[in-house]
Amino acid sequence: MLESAEIGHAISKAAYARQEPRLREALLNAQFDLAQAKRRPVLMIITGVEGGGRSETANKLTEWMDPRHIRVTAFGPRGEEERARPPAWRYWRALPPRGRIGIFLNAWYTEMVAARLAGQLNKTRFEFYLQETRAYERMLVDEGVVLLKFWIHLSKDALRERLVALREDARRGKHVFKIDRQRARIYLKLRPVWEEMLRESSTADAPWTIIEGTDERYRNLTVGKVLLDALNEANAPATAATPRRSRSAGPPPPVVDNVALIRNLDLSQKLARAAYEAQLDKWQGRLATLTQAKRFRDHSLILAFEGADAAGKGGAIRRVTSAFDARQYVSVPIAAPTDEEKMYPYLWRFWRAIPPRGGITIFDRTWYGRVLVERVEGFCSEYDWRRAYDEINQFEEQLVEGGAVVCKFWLQISKSEQYRRFKAREKTSFKRFKITAEDWRNRAKWDAYEHAVADMVDRTSTEIAPWTLVEAEDKYFARIKVLRTIVKAIETALKLT
Amino acid sequence: MLESAEIGHAISKAAYARQEPRLREALLNAQFDLAQAKRRPVLMIITGVEGGGRSETANKLTEWMDPRHIRVTAFGPRGEEERARPPAWRYWRALPPRGRIGIFLNAWYTEMVAARLAGQLNKTRFEFYLQETRAYERMLVDEGVVLLKFWIHLSKDALRERLVALREDARRGKHVFKIDRQRARIYLKLRPVWEEMLRESSTADAPWTIIEGTDERYRNLTVGKVLLDALNEANAPATAATPRRSRSAGPPPPVVDNVALIRNLDLSQKLARAAYEAQLDKWQGRLATLTQAKRFRDHSLILAFEGADAAGKGGAIRRVTSAFDARQYVSVPIAAPTDEEKMYPYLWRFWRAIPPRGGITIFDRTWYGRVLVERVEGFCSEYDWRRAYDEINQFEEQLVEGGAVVCKFWLQISKSEQYRRFKAREKTSFKRFKITAEDWRNRAKWDAYEHAVADMVDRTSTEIAPWTLVEAEDKYFARIKVLRTIVKAIETALKLT
Repeated sequence: MLESAEIGHAISKAAYARQEPRLREALLNAQFDLAQAKRRPVLMIITGVEGGGRSETANKLTEWMDPRHIRVTAFGPRGEEERARPPAWRYWRALPPRGRIGIFLNAWYTEMVAARLAGQLNKTRFEFYLQETRAYERMLVDEGVVLLKFWIHLSKDALRERLVALREDARRGKHVFKIDRQRARIYLKLRPVWEEMLRESSTADAPWTIIEGTDERYRNLTVGKVLLDALNEANAPATAATPRRSRSAGPPPPVVDNVALIRNLDLSQKLARAAYEAQLDKWQGRLATLTQAKRFRDHSLILAFEGADAAGKGGAIRRVTSAFDARQYVSVPIAAPTDEEKMYPYLWRFWRAIPPRGGITIFDRTWYGRVLVERVEGFCSEYDWRRAYDEINQFEEQLVEGGAVVCKFWLQISKSEQYRRFKAREKTSFKRFKITAEDWRNRAKWDAYEHAVADMVDRTSTEIAPWTLVEAEDKYFARIKVLRTIVKAIETALKLT
Repeated sequence: MLESAEIGHAISKAAYARQEPRLREALLNAQFDLAQAKRRPVLMIITGVEGGGRSETANKLTEWMDPRHIRVTAFGPRGEEERARPPAWRYWRALPPRGRIGIFLNAWYTEMVAARLAGQLNKTRFEFYLQETRAYERMLVDEGVVLLKFWIHLSKDALRERLVALREDARRGKHVFKIDRQRARIYLKLRPVWEEMLRESSTADAPWTIIEGTDERYRNLTVGKVLLDALNEANAPATAATPRRSRSAGPPPPVVDNVALIRNLDLSQKLARAAYEAQLDKWQGRLATLTQAKRFRDHSLILAFEGADAAGKGGAIRRVTSAFDARQYVSVPIAAPTDEEKMYPYLWRFWRAIPPRGGITIFDRTWYGRVLVERVEGFCSEYDWRRAYDEINQFEEQLVEGGAVVCKFWLQISKSEQYRRFKAREKTSFKRFKITAEDWRNRAKWDAYEHAVADMVDRTSTEIAPWTLVEAEDKYFARIKVLRTIVKAIETALKLT
């Protein structure tokens, strides 16, 4: 793939002088439209050979365009907060919102290649990450991100010449960007790794643009033109006749009677008050000890609660949090996204709240809203919720790989029990339990939700992040099951069993 | 002040059993109302004597109330990201939004006392920080924060008994919170420092509640009751007859003809193109060298741009950013706050963007919106914009103390020049320069803005963060003045002059 970027592309000074002002004006106008419409974010990944001019390219783009709507992020060694969280966290944190251009220098690619070369990743693992990257980038594109990937290339000879020239510049006092000479020296070792990486991560959704870095004018104009095309496409309004994304959801999945999974839960399971209180003490005590343990500091705990209205999520969460030191956990109730959250892919708001090692986050309603309420209420397209299952599995895999223990609970009650609880709540003095018209509306869609839940459990109960279906007709029984499940999961992760 | 919390307050088990359920229900209801109305945030500071039960109190509150709307933050040693920014940054980052309760364990008080005791702060400096704290807390209250400060106290004897009891508990395998025995041992040294601190920081806006920590039941009930009163007050709707804040703006400031400051600027200053280009090269080069210098890594650079529409802010900013490495700076255009930003005090959105050491943030419009557009358009009350001058001075002082170089630019053009530029822009092909109806509306208020600008410069041009008035009738002249000012400011900070 790389040979075509080693043939000495060059643009004359005169040609550059003619083309640059026009390109610049067009870029500025396109950028302005992007910022006004706030329809899509633009993410440019610029990586490539050391010394090829990645930073110079980023600087040229911010010089050409309005720097107020561009943000350049260079991903170097990880800082303290980044090391404490799953690897992907820092990339999510830097994503541009709609209307803005984000430039990622190196992004996830340089890290992957370095780990492969250092032998921290064997071939299989490297390939696995490349697949994961493909899936991740596809998700970004599906979420509306305009994703551009540039590989700035230099042949070995061109690199050698560049290094000589840079040394010369520095000697004469000219400001030059720092070069990692160590990396430059191992060019021949890196090259086959690049080749594989570029090949495996060049997809229809997010192809690489490989650009020869030898001639600065050629490099800048080429990057600028690719960006301009992308901006123009991003700014073209999606009409009903020509939808922006032409993907159909594909054939429907085979009909299986997976609702039985939910319907066959034995909701008659109960716990008497005395037994409950003894068990509560026991499991809360164990949970407190575990989360205070020294070993827990290498892990984190992420609890996801879903369930029908009045299923008892709040009560279960309180029995869990009272085992924790209040300094250690954060509780995140998920409602409609804020206008800021709407500017990003749907998983962004959850990544925001991912705990560091030693920390705990409790989500009251979760990222599964995508395949529950958004699916049932039609807030997203069928294509969108159908792709979410895989995206969510990948998300949770990244969490677990980052040291998190992930427990997901679906609290199930019967339709009649929900009615009883609604009626009881209408009389309660606890205002937080008051029933709204929306609760009754949701109830009317009981069957649709039941199907959505069954599909969700079917598709996203993985070995590393399994669903726990909780028979919640009896609150005592439900709370103990939740507590016990969390304790067991932490014990397994801490290798205490 | 502390003696009254050493007399052995206690509540019997029976009395507690009677009172607790009622208090809890009332707290839950009040918390629910707070979360629904989202009118005000509640910030509880809990600090006091080591071993007095600060964490236990926080845990009891999260147990009583809905943990999903409370966030407890313990402020211990500073992490990497915190050390790289001004001291106040981490407190701003943890502030609760409207509708939520934030509990700060220790907050700014413990740090201050520790520094005083370690001799890092002399008496004068300590008193200065106490004054700063008073002003900071007053600002929070003025911004609608319900601020509660609890000092959990123990007499020396009670502390000694507590330490013995804790050791006993730990021996029997009971979970106990960690105690800093070092701090406990120097009780007698700390006590006079606490006394001064409590006295100086107990204000009408934010008085301390001093609570004896010896009896757990007394402690919890007292904190709970104070919180309940505060929540009820916070939830009482402000009516026209009984405004929440009864403060008047006070007498108007003496009329001085400070507008002359603006009107007398010599707008005829010009720079010819050739001179401009030579100077541009020179100052951009110096700016690049300075911000790449090793010494700059101990500092940061914060640039604030204000000016009438079409005064040339964008153009000046571009000439500045093109001297920077794009990886090093972030540019923040300030428009109307997002709904998330509206949940916090007005300075929150700026604190969010404060650069770490070695970094640069450029604000295109700034926190001065409060005393410019918000004042002129009546978006905030007179009391609000009048208190802003001091708040802003304090904010900038904190930035500078944290190592930042702060440059503030007001770009001034004449009314006729603005007209000329508006007309020219209506014909331009650069869309970002198109003139909107709002631009014409703002222009109609030229005189009101002129007065606001004059007051702003009068009140907030400080030695550490002076305003630079830029005669911007000639763009070349303006850009060079901006660049030169930044270079000089960095040179002074880096002690290169």
